[in-house]
Amino acid sequence: MNFTFTAKVDDLARRVDSFMNTNVYPAEREYHDYIEKSKTRWVIPPVMEDLKKKAKADGLWNLFLAEFEDYGAGLSNLEYAPLAEIMGRSMIGPEVFNCSAPDTGNMEVLARYGTQAQRDEWLVPLLNGEIRSSFAMTEPAVASSDATNIQCMIDKQGNEYVINGRKWWTSGAPDPRCKIMIVMGKTDVNAPRHQQQSQILVPVATKGVTIVRPLKVFGSDDAPHGHAEVLFENVRVPASNLIGSQGEGFAIAQGRLGPGRIHHCMRLIGCAQRALEMMCARAESRVAFGKKLSEQGSVREDIARSICDIEQARLLTLKAAARMDEVSYKEARDLIAMIKVVAPTMAQTVIDRAIQVHGAMGLSQDTFLAEAFAYARTVRLADGPDQVHMSSLGKQIVGRYAA
Amino acid sequence: MNFTFTAKVDDLARRVDSFMNTNVYPAEREYHDYIEKSKTRWVIPPVMEDLKKKAKADGLWNLFLAEFEDYGAGLSNLEYAPLAEIMGRSMIGPEVFNCSAPDTGNMEVLARYGTQAQRDEWLVPLLNGEIRSSFAMTEPAVASSDATNIQCMIDKQGNEYVINGRKWWTSGAPDPRCKIMIVMGKTDVNAPRHQQQSQILVPVATKGVTIVRPLKVFGSDDAPHGHAEVLFENVRVPASNLIGSQGEGFAIAQGRLGPGRIHHCMRLIGCAQRALEMMCARAESRVAFGKKLSEQGSVREDIARSICDIEQARLLTLKAAARMDEVSYKEARDLIAMIKVVAPTMAQTVIDRAIQVHGAMGLSQDTFLAEAFAYARTVRLADGPDQVHMSSLGKQIVGRYAA
Amino acid sequence: MNFTFTAKVDDLARRVDSFMNTNVYPAEREYHDYIEKSKTRWVIPPVMEDLKKKAKADGLWNLFLAEFEDYGAGLSNLEYAPLAEIMGRSMIGPEVFNCSAPDTGNMEVLARYGTQAQRDEWLVPLLNGEIRSSFAMTEPAVASSDATNIQCMIDKQGNEYVINGRKWWTSGAPDPRCKIMIVMGKTDVNAPRHQQQSQILVPVATKGVTIVRPLKVFGSDDAPHGHAEVLFENVRVPASNLIGSQGEGFAIAQGRLGPGRIHHCMRLIGCAQRALEMMCARAESRVAFGKKLSEQGSVREDIARSICDIEQARLLTLKAAARMDEVSYKEARDLIAMIKVVAPTMAQTVIDRAIQVHGAMGLSQDTFLAEAFAYARTVRLADGPDQVHMSSLGKQIVGRYAA
Amino acid sequence: MNFTFTAKVDDLARRVDSFMNTNVYPAEREYHDYIEKSKTRWVIPPVMEDLKKKAKADGLWNLFLAEFEDYGAGLSNLEYAPLAEIMGRSMIGPEVFNCSAPDTGNMEVLARYGTQAQRDEWLVPLLNGEIRSSFAMTEPAVASSDATNIQCMIDKQGNEYVINGRKWWTSGAPDPRCKIMIVMGKTDVNAPRHQQQSQILVPVATKGVTIVRPLKVFGSDDAPHGHAEVLFENVRVPASNLIGSQGEGFAIAQGRLGPGRIHHCMRLIGCAQRALEMMCARAESRVAFGKKLSEQGSVREDIARSICDIEQARLLTLKAAARMDEVSYKEARDLIAMIKVVAPTMAQTVIDRAIQVHGAMGLSQDTFLAEAFAYARTVRLADGPDQVHMSSLGKQIVGRYAA
Repeated sequence: MNFTFTAKVDDLARRVDSFMNTNVYPAEREYHDYIEKSKTRWVIPPVMEDLKKKAKADGLWNLFLAEFEDYGAGLSNLEYAPLAEIMGRSMIGPEVFNCSAPDTGNMEVLARYGTQAQRDEWLVPLLNGEIRSSFAMTEPAVASSDATNIQCMIDKQGNEYVINGRKWWTSGAPDPRCKIMIVMGKTDVNAPRHQQQSQILVPVATKGVTIVRPLKVFGSDDAPHGHAEVLFENVRVPASNLIGSQGEGFAIAQGRLGPGRIHHCMRLIGCAQRALEMMCARAESRVAFGKKLSEQGSVREDIARSICDIEQARLLTLKAAARMDEVSYKEARDLIAMIKVVAPTMAQTVIDRAIQVHGAMGLSQDTFLAEAFAYARTVRLADGPDQVHMSSLGKQIVGRYAA
Repeated sequence: MNFTFTAKVDDLARRVDSFMNTNVYPAEREYHDYIEKSKTRWVIPPVMEDLKKKAKADGLWNLFLAEFEDYGAGLSNLEYAPLAEIMGRSMIGPEVFNCSAPDTGNMEVLARYGTQAQRDEWLVPLLNGEIRSSFAMTEPAVASSDATNIQCMIDKQGNEYVINGRKWWTSGAPDPRCKIMIVMGKTDVNAPRHQQQSQILVPVATKGVTIVRPLKVFGSDDAPHGHAEVLFENVRVPASNLIGSQGEGFAIAQGRLGPGRIHHCMRLIGCAQRALEMMCARAESRVAFGKKLSEQGSVREDIARSICDIEQARLLTLKAAARMDEVSYKEARDLIAMIKVVAPTMAQTVIDRAIQVHGAMGLSQDTFLAEAFAYARTVRLADGPDQVHMSSLGKQIVGRYAA
Repeated sequence: MNFTFTAKVDDLARRVDSFMNTNVYPAEREYHDYIEKSKTRWVIPPVMEDLKKKAKADGLWNLFLAEFEDYGAGLSNLEYAPLAEIMGRSMIGPEVFNCSAPDTGNMEVLARYGTQAQRDEWLVPLLNGEIRSSFAMTEPAVASSDATNIQCMIDKQGNEYVINGRKWWTSGAPDPRCKIMIVMGKTDVNAPRHQQQSQILVPVATKGVTIVRPLKVFGSDDAPHGHAEVLFENVRVPASNLIGSQGEGFAIAQGRLGPGRIHHCMRLIGCAQRALEMMCARAESRVAFGKKLSEQGSVREDIARSICDIEQARLLTLKAAARMDEVSYKEARDLIAMIKVVAPTMAQTVIDRAIQVHGAMGLSQDTFLAEAFAYARTVRLADGPDQVHMSSLGKQIVGRYAA
Repeated sequence: MNFTFTAKVDDLARRVDSFMNTNVYPAEREYHDYIEKSKTRWVIPPVMEDLKKKAKADGLWNLFLAEFEDYGAGLSNLEYAPLAEIMGRSMIGPEVFNCSAPDTGNMEVLARYGTQAQRDEWLVPLLNGEIRSSFAMTEPAVASSDATNIQCMIDKQGNEYVINGRKWWTSGAPDPRCKIMIVMGKTDVNAPRHQQQSQILVPVATKGVTIVRPLKVFGSDDAPHGHAEVLFENVRVPASNLIGSQGEGFAIAQGRLGPGRIHHCMRLIGCAQRALEMMCARAESRVAFGKKLSEQGSVREDIARSICDIEQARLLTLKAAARMDEVSYKEARDLIAMIKVVAPTMAQTVIDRAIQVHGAMGLSQDTFLAEAFAYARTVRLADGPDQVHMSSLGKQIVGRYAA
């Protein structure tokens, strides 16, 4: 395992970092204020499109994507890790570089499984940052951590598929730029357990698609990205919208989740790192009971514990990324489970400590801490709660050492 | 110490519980929907005023207040504890019974220190639930956990006091019914450290008072109650608005914080208890990987740990309440510090587990968990961060055992 | 629930405390030194018999036993709790007052189920502190936390029972004063699951009984009490040695475990309390980097957390004791499980912190901390590991709230 | 940073692992039994000397030592890490390869600072494994975590130094093969704070040196290695026994502590890894309540958490080792502090979980868990308690981010 990066990656990291310092952090306030002052919150602050243009012009674009036709930076998972961490330091960072979920996963799926027509219609504008997309998997009625529970029906009728179902936590669906959804559902309830599901492209504007409402996380609607409840009532799309072959939905989902999980972890390490730096700065600048907070033993211990937690999670994430590059995602699933269990909880804990040092301001809209906390908390559930990953990981480890 | 309650208290507890079941829980959805659908979020859902009328008619009103003239139920802290816990099970519960912060603290201050005129003008309508109030202490510029840091100036000029300063986290100030603030600031910077502060009544409508903006907690504005940033620019009030005597502000604040802290803890135990009950119901009703969640070992352990945590915090809170009844608040300060350290973290932890069992729904507006989590997290900072209380408690305990 | 104690109990507590201060703590060094310097470690330091005589003379004897003929103090579980806590503050404390495990459990079993002959022969000398006893239940070959796994055979042959099996963790068996064992095993493998077991009296001197070896806990043999591996090879005892009726063994075991568990918890609270007091004294007396340890923020936090942890566990234990007095042990099993889960881990944690403040001395034979730590750690496994109690408790709580 | 190892290191790792499997693990029982059955416990089981001969013959000897004259394997810290981890999997492992503390540290000090005469007399036999040594630094009377507190006097009198003082936790001093001590004390109380100390060679057989008693850890004497209290009364040694120059003691101590700390951490990772493997095997082989322990959700979670904890600590330790190779120990002190804080607590936690899965056997002499637990617990205090390292680390990190 080699964690030394090539000059190319070091250079990209330096440029992304510099771009963040010069352009992204200073724009955070403007971005949020724009939404705050708009009549509807589902608007895109112009500063975002400006930042995207700049990043694209600087060649800091689609870095997540291993070489694909004319797109992508050709980076391995390991090489992408330090870049994703730096982007993750701002809640508006990843989108600036066209590296934000769920578009990254959707683009990867289209690149790998899409027909030429599907790519021309949806992948190219996504790669160009002209539209956005969402992924409709989770359902309110069932424990969706077990994907075989999913009940949305995708029925073949002649040359069309007809979709009926209710989804929620369809992230990005409320974004006005979101034009296309990938929907997961059952095409054959009688097939073997893992071949009942398919994935299909559904344009948001299709008749029968209703964005029921935005869901909130701790009261925040995460506008203008958002997380929607979406109703599909007799939604008809051409059969050619199916991704891959019928019954392949579960396998496609598995393939997307590995990279998806590690991307979240990389970003969360960035969140935690920034929280730590803010905690240090705050502790150094505030005085209580005649002493700087940074001179209080318990604050120092919180800082010490945080750097230990972050550094360990970072190294584990790098190891998982390296392993994903070396073997199949399936073979790397122990390490993917490990970081999925470790990184979000680590970030939640570190950010919680940073909030504590900031006092009530740490909970408010005045710092990035509250948003980052909500993000970390959410990822402990996204793509399966910690418990599911721990159970699966524990079973693998028993198999390894007690065979 | 006697934790057996009198028949009177048992009867009140039964009636409050029944009122919650019949009236409050069923109204939660309507309450939130009303705000969600209003143009401005700073409106009072009519259902709240209806509930208040009913509770008043049922004699479940001002239960927090030890007998005061014609008001109050004459309960001790210990007797009030089980009632506050039950009310705390809903985020809209305490207000229904006119037992919500910061009004309770303000009413106690006015009852104890107010002149007859001050009481007639402000205490009576507060006791009647006709107006609401707020308490402006925390400031953005200084570590307010150390109250001597506070910088707002309250200058005597002839027959008036002139107030200049910037406050935030002034809870309840954005509520349209909030008519009066108690403001804490310095009347004499040359007095001994703990005699520089005074508290003064400032009607919200006074010239020079600006509600700058509502602060959010994890993105939630907590409307229509809210937490405001408030600017005081040359605000002039009659000298008769001073509460108690000049320089007594710190002492008055100390007196209010003991009960204030324990009330929060009681409510948070109610929050945690309800979260546990919801966790059980959810675990029993969801199936993943072929088994009910309630049959999974790790879920059972989370439930077991939660009941242990709750029960212990409840008993500690009862002990603190009993002690506050027996001796002065000052002498009970070790136990008050203990529950302030224990109960909010306990509640945050238990609610976090309940969220995990609920999946992403647990983070959304569809259950009370997200609100309750934010409340618990906030109280870990309100009236001083955990660290301040632990430091003070540790010092007391060393003094006790190593004298 | 009433945690106020009668004058009788307050008086006993005062006397036990005074006895500990005057006689027990000062004898700890002598007790340990005597064993250290003996050729064999399985000797009884004379100071122990002296202390027992004194305690008996002072009427501080058999306090655990609810009135039984001429014996016992007639205390309820709740009333015994503060006394057991005080005795538990020294590892040699409980024996001084004839209140140590496993004798207390054995005496209760004999008092409740023994025949007159069994009582005359074994109970009376136990009550007088003339002999000691042990309880042979756990077996090396099976997970004994599930008592139905137990494999020791107790076969009726004519007028005798013949016992074959291997036990371990038979506490007290290596003590030279230990004359009698209660052995649990199967009398009928074809009976219903919970009626296969019986309990039988086996004098240690019986042919076929071999004390194989003492087991150690973290390298300590806990001499002269000890924990033995015991082999039973064709051990024959008269049929009249059976306790209760055949097949009643499981039920008798259940009946003894409730009080046994709570007694351990009471003692562990005493251990933790003493550790806290020692931690305070040490922190006040040591200086590092120019400051007393007691002035370091992180030490203060450890002290603060410890008092919170102890106080909560103490209150929970009192509640469990009160509940055991009010209803059957079976109905109080939720609370018994709670304290079994809470108190040992609490004690381990608090003592671990106290060790840390003492530096390496805290690990050595020079303080009571190392012994107390080992005791707490052991109780997390004795009578079933935490996991078993949490699982059972979780199931009960789901049943309560999700019925 | 490059965690890929050269073929040489991979080969060494394979050979050390194979040697452990073939020779060391199978000898553990014999080693312990020999001591158990000896009259005095301070004897060396012959199997140890046999193992040492074999390891030496196999070229697995002094691997810790970077090339020194004809000795040492020339490995960097990073290269040594995986080897030390494997050796650390047995409590008797490191000594077999002549890689055990405190000899390693003493040999490094002599190699770096010793005169030719000192090396000939003491270093050569140590490198050959013919004698053992100890390091007398910690004192009972002062908080030795602050090395400037140390009070032992080393007075120059003519051509001699005269040593007076009381040390304890002088590890290895009770070993009958221990012939030489390095003693730290004050040569000049008037010098600047960090130049008051010197280190000096004191043969154990010198007049005035008394091994007062062995100290125990949780009741275990750790024979035949042991930890002694040592009294120095007018102990006279030639002035040529001084190591380095007068006043250099503090600096020499600093230089030894970095590698010493990381060696302990490497070994502890081995302990934790073995505990995890044992936990898996045990969980797979025991049945309770009708299910294998390995199928219980909470056991799986404990296993999952443990592999996450171990893997993270391992990576952090490798990073610290790599950093120590790249820059000075002083510059790597943040990472050394991190692993000192992380690894021992991690190991204690993982081993505690493994004990829990083993039931009471896990506490006994029948597995390596109890010994390993005591070792991990001890290292949380050795070379300074966690709190000291966290405080120092926290301060460094504040300096880095809030400058």
